[in-house]
Amino acid sequence: MLKKGLLGQLTQTLCCLPGVGPKTAQRMSFHLLQRDRSGAKILAETLIEALEKIGHCRFCRTLTEQEICPVCADQARDPSLVCVVENPSDVWIIDQAAVFKGHYFVLHGRLSPLDGIGPDELGLDLLEDRMAEGIIKELILATNSTVEGEATAYFIGELAKKHQVNASRIAQGVPMGGELEFIDSGTLAHAFNGRKVF
Amino acid sequence: MLKKGLLGQLTQTLCCLPGVGPKTAQRMSFHLLQRDRSGAKILAETLIEALEKIGHCRFCRTLTEQEICPVCADQARDPSLVCVVENPSDVWIIDQAAVFKGHYFVLHGRLSPLDGIGPDELGLDLLEDRMAEGIIKELILATNSTVEGEATAYFIGELAKKHQVNASRIAQGVPMGGELEFIDSGTLAHAFNGRKVF
Repeated sequence: MLKKGLLGQLTQTLCCLPGVGPKTAQRMSFHLLQRDRSGAKILAETLIEALEKIGHCRFCRTLTEQEICPVCADQARDPSLVCVVENPSDVWIIDQAAVFKGHYFVLHGRLSPLDGIGPDELGLDLLEDRMAEGIIKELILATNSTVEGEATAYFIGELAKKHQVNASRIAQGVPMGGELEFIDSGTLAHAFNGRKVF
Repeated sequence: MLKKGLLGQLTQTLCCLPGVGPKTAQRMSFHLLQRDRSGAKILAETLIEALEKIGHCRFCRTLTEQEICPVCADQARDPSLVCVVENPSDVWIIDQAAVFKGHYFVLHGRLSPLDGIGPDELGLDLLEDRMAEGIIKELILATNSTVEGEATAYFIGELAKKHQVNASRIAQGVPMGGELEFIDSGTLAHAFNGRKVF
């Protein structure tokens, strides 16, 4: 499918984008070179600038171009309440829901011993240091509802116990607008076990 | 949806890619910054190099990094037979089918007076010069089977007549493997009008 030369190279490198295969990459190459050279130039420059400047927040490890991200720097937010998430994108999603006014802690992954991802790779030593300092009063564990996410939440919960910090897990159940007909049995089991007095 | 700052800028510029909306662009930004920084760097560099080096072939106007593209430079191909296409991607597609061993001429669009695209924008002056030189014996008009594509083919056909060059249009009909049930009436009409003795 791919031709040699610079055009082929461009197509191949565009395949590094998530969800982009050879056909889409080829369409993108032609589009950029034929119809949107100025946009392509800006894209390349922004990408280089972003790679240079965007690093991790010193406190919460989210992606930011400052040393301390806007959330951690915000005086109006409660530093005693920390929400632990897997990815920086989760920070955005939770912040858009506007239900949480504490700080975050981004793991950049989940525990996965087979892939060589242990507590140190997730920055849990940093989180432990902060729990030991006594600033954190509650950890809200908002890792994904997958097997690895649950295991990671359990592990961090145990760490929290060690430092006498309360840990909670976000609720699992039927999503809003979800019809029971289309909900899997695992979720239904969680919904029944976690039922509340009406 | 978009946040301010460099991350937001990157997401916005990624939206210039065809078929990429804000959500996909956000996923791409996070992916590039979190998981594939080396790939992102290569992508940015390749893009800049491609923008600098890839231009148009002096003869057929296709995208190439050389002054004359490999097809036009290929001595084994017949320069008296020229296939006129709308886009450089069409050159690739026809070459993959391996049915054509002549040269190409890329219009980079189609006649569209309302958008200010006339014969000069399509490089038809260049094509006329080459017809006047007497090298071209047959033009195969392979513009798209759309209203504008047909109009463009007709216009170029008239030019060819003026210079006593034969012009032909690629056949229209039922595609291979196409079931009649799913074929539109316009295509069926073409298929019936263009029927051949069996």
